[in-house]
Amino acid sequence: MTEASPGGVPPELARLRHSIDNIDAALVHILAERFKATQRVGVLKAELGLPPSDLEREAVQIARLRALAREADLDPEFAEKFLAFLVAEVIRHHEEIALDRSQQV
Amino acid sequence: MTEASPGGVPPELARLRHSIDNIDAALVHILAERFKATQRVGVLKAELGLPPSDLEREAVQIARLRALAREADLDPEFAEKFLAFLVAEVIRHHEEIALDRSQQV
Repeated sequence: MTEASPGGVPPELARLRHSIDNIDAALVHILAERFKATQRVGVLKAELGLPPSDLEREAVQIARLRALAREADLDPEFAEKFLAFLVAEVIRHHEEIALDRSQQV
Repeated sequence: MTEASPGGVPPELARLRHSIDNIDAALVHILAERFKATQRVGVLKAELGLPPSDLEREAVQIARLRALAREADLDPEFAEKFLAFLVAEVIRHHEEIALDRSQQV
């Protein structure tokens, strides 16, 4: 039923991969924007002497993302894991910012 | 310089968090679309008897995402880790699809 394209990849698979590649480009650009915002949060927190992580804020984010995931038909467990993955990277950045500032003093 | 908002959160931090929340909603919806596409890839691969993972395709994806990340000012190492995080979830789905199909036979 599915014929192979010249490159040996079945056409429907090639089509889906092209969509996935477009989606991944969108994800990379949106993530770049997210880290710009969180970098600014890191600088602000360091200026104000606030701790890098905020468990209360994270709990609200988790609940909200799980609800959004359910609406979008995405596994809420995965959405929570994804947020934890992003937050781990953000905290690493914030700790670097705080360390840089402490070394400048 | 930065005044606290009624909730005790400095206004600039509140503003940045609102942007991060908007970005996260976009990410959840785009990820839901990505998994729809990869679910279809999983079904197609199972139908065609193709293996769940494809190292050659992944190598191309990694190189492309790293290049896109550099253009977007995102850490290429993070972009690669992010793709690995997504691919691990996708492979898990594909294995489930293959298992479901083998149990139906």
